[in-house]
Amino acid sequence: MTYNFLLDLALILLCTKVLGLLTRRFKMPQVVGALLAGVILGPAVLNVLSDKDFITKISEIGVIVLMFTAGMETDIKELKKTGTASFIIALIGVLVPLAGGFALAAAFNGPDLSEGATASLFLQNMFIGVILTATSVSITVETLKEMGKLNTRAGNAILGAAIIDDILGIVALTIITSMADPNVNVAIVLLKVVGFFVFAAVAGVLFFLFFRKLQNHYHKDMRRFVILAFVFCLLLSYCAEEFFGVADITGAFIAGLIISNTKRAPYIASRFETLSYTLISPVFFASIGLKMTMPEMTPHIIIFSVLLVIIAVLTKIVGCGLGAKICHFTTRESIQVGVGMVSRGEVALIVATKGAALGLMSNSFMGPIILTVVLTTVIAPILLKIAFSNRKDHKGGDDEDQKIEESELVKNYNIAIKGEDTEEIPAGARS
Amino acid sequence: MTYNFLLDLALILLCTKVLGLLTRRFKMPQVVGALLAGVILGPAVLNVLSDKDFITKISEIGVIVLMFTAGMETDIKELKKTGTASFIIALIGVLVPLAGGFALAAAFNGPDLSEGATASLFLQNMFIGVILTATSVSITVETLKEMGKLNTRAGNAILGAAIIDDILGIVALTIITSMADPNVNVAIVLLKVVGFFVFAAVAGVLFFLFFRKLQNHYHKDMRRFVILAFVFCLLLSYCAEEFFGVADITGAFIAGLIISNTKRAPYIASRFETLSYTLISPVFFASIGLKMTMPEMTPHIIIFSVLLVIIAVLTKIVGCGLGAKICHFTTRESIQVGVGMVSRGEVALIVATKGAALGLMSNSFMGPIILTVVLTTVIAPILLKIAFSNRKDHKGGDDEDQKIEESELVKNYNIAIKGEDTEEIPAGARS
Repeated sequence: MTYNFLLDLALILLCTKVLGLLTRRFKMPQVVGALLAGVILGPAVLNVLSDKDFITKISEIGVIVLMFTAGMETDIKELKKTGTASFIIALIGVLVPLAGGFALAAAFNGPDLSEGATASLFLQNMFIGVILTATSVSITVETLKEMGKLNTRAGNAILGAAIIDDILGIVALTIITSMADPNVNVAIVLLKVVGFFVFAAVAGVLFFLFFRKLQNHYHKDMRRFVILAFVFCLLLSYCAEEFFGVADITGAFIAGLIISNTKRAPYIASRFETLSYTLISPVFFASIGLKMTMPEMTPHIIIFSVLLVIIAVLTKIVGCGLGAKICHFTTRESIQVGVGMVSRGEVALIVATKGAALGLMSNSFMGPIILTVVLTTVIAPILLKIAFSNRKDHKGGDDEDQKIEESELVKNYNIAIKGEDTEEIPAGARS
Repeated sequence: MTYNFLLDLALILLCTKVLGLLTRRFKMPQVVGALLAGVILGPAVLNVLSDKDFITKISEIGVIVLMFTAGMETDIKELKKTGTASFIIALIGVLVPLAGGFALAAAFNGPDLSEGATASLFLQNMFIGVILTATSVSITVETLKEMGKLNTRAGNAILGAAIIDDILGIVALTIITSMADPNVNVAIVLLKVVGFFVFAAVAGVLFFLFFRKLQNHYHKDMRRFVILAFVFCLLLSYCAEEFFGVADITGAFIAGLIISNTKRAPYIASRFETLSYTLISPVFFASIGLKMTMPEMTPHIIIFSVLLVIIAVLTKIVGCGLGAKICHFTTRESIQVGVGMVSRGEVALIVATKGAALGLMSNSFMGPIILTVVLTTVIAPILLKIAFSNRKDHKGGDDEDQKIEESELVKNYNIAIKGEDTEEIPAGARS
């Protein structure tokens, strides 16, 4: 065994923290700094990390724990209330980028760019649209948590819509790959998605009853509840990916939702907060930046890249914002929701890789897509910060973020983490 | 990427916890249960884990963090006081097993067993002795922490002796491999060991000054200190292995010692406690059990195995106990010290693998050595528990563990972790 992974970890932890503190000085979320740390350490600039497989797996645990804690902090009653709205937001937020991506590809794609792709030009163009549909909610969740805005009406709508977006993305990918690949059957895939939710509901109820019985029986020991909750989260994540073809983070989020109904949730969430920031969460955010490479670029491809990024950002804001507006959100909230769905993540990269393998996409498009993923991910938290900032010169009641009344859970949670890990700028540094 | 590592983690966390609670019911340390969990999940019984590389790396981080927190909890003044004693304990504790292993091998080794080994029979026999010298202190540290006895005079002597034992083990390994391999130069290796301690001292002082300056400047934020401490620990561990050929855990322990002198130590230690038990420490303890396989055994080899285990246990108790007795420890303390040094760990396995590659050892001995590592590791915490238990029928003042007066650090530490994670048996379960 080589020990390079120790150096990799040390570099990631150091750089994400230093750059995170630096971006905060510039009034930007720390997560932007963490992403930039990944870009700097990765192949795009220094290329100093060597154990990529290990980093990838730690980062996968990082995003699972992130979505798990998001689930634990989510007010399930509120989530139910925003259910219909979330569905409409997700649906329009998938259709608009799909159309936008298709239109852009149709304008650009031709014999010179489709090298290596075997599917019809129509399917190829459609596939670019499909890539633009998948929202990566993790960056948004971290930014909202950092700003203390996760538990707003817009925050809840984003969370719900992101989960549904994930499902719609799977459906879209399945339909298009089934058209290119005779081995994929749409009906079976849809059945599996439904199957997962039935499975998660049954497993969740059983686990909840078992957990409640245990917590009534054991009052003094807490560690076993933390471990038990984590085991449940890992198993649900694993089953989602392995047996149902659903993203593991969806499983983790549902596991968190189930735990959120137990008495132990605030304590468990505070422990996972620690696990997260000491090791796995910096690795996750850095790993996104690490994927940034400098691909070969022709002028044609550079123009395409710029337009792809613009369309990726605008179509999500317009699509999701429109969905929110239809559901009677205020204009300010609608913009917040739209902005919250902008970031694309690893799902887009996985989809693109799969498409290239199936002949649905030429490798020429890989560069622009990676660029889009990284840029939307860096832009999203900055836009979110702007969208949620209090504009004092604004007239009317529109500028107040409708904060959900704190549930008992959230109150307890805040007590549990209070004074534990404050990261405020010290008085001396402000002057 | 496959998602099997999620399932692996879930199984390890669940089994180590359940078996840990079970062994505690039988008044044994929880760590015994964690080790057994590894044996059961591993190739010896169920063989259900698939991502071995990932588990190995997480477990390496686990043992690093374990030694790091041990360093943070160590009273450096006391360690200095027990310095000479630790050296004598370690030295005799290396020489006696070396002689014992050599004698046993000399009695058994012959043309039938030395298949594949190219070195002279004398060197082969000596090598078996060398394998028996390396103590694995991590299990002992965990057991002592669990019993609250780490900060006793015996606990400190064990810690110090284990560090020195590690160095002596490297020296012994170097001498014997340099005799078999012309590429290894003893002088250079010794120079590197000395070089490491000089390097660690310089780096430690510089880091300490920087850290102190930072902590005087920033009063409210704590997370950055935790991250910074972890980065220092990882870098020192990495440098130890990579540039000086010293075990990474020695680097981690020294990093912990340096942090222990800062004001933030209690807080940092409590955070690492959480990181440890939620993820990495169960993986580490299970990983030792995972190494247990059922090798091919001839009657000849079985007898050898049994004798090897007995000699491994007895020579360490006698050697280290004798060393402690010479240094005016009480009989009870001497036994505690001897028992605390019994467990052999991954170092013995690494040494054995290296020896087999160099022709110093026949592969026939691999089975007995694995058995010795696993059995001494399981026996050690049980013996420790007995050695530290309060025997009320004992006469004289000898049965009181000489507990060091709590330093400010330890007091603060106890306050920091108090009430956080109690794992007591509930009243209801006792009946």
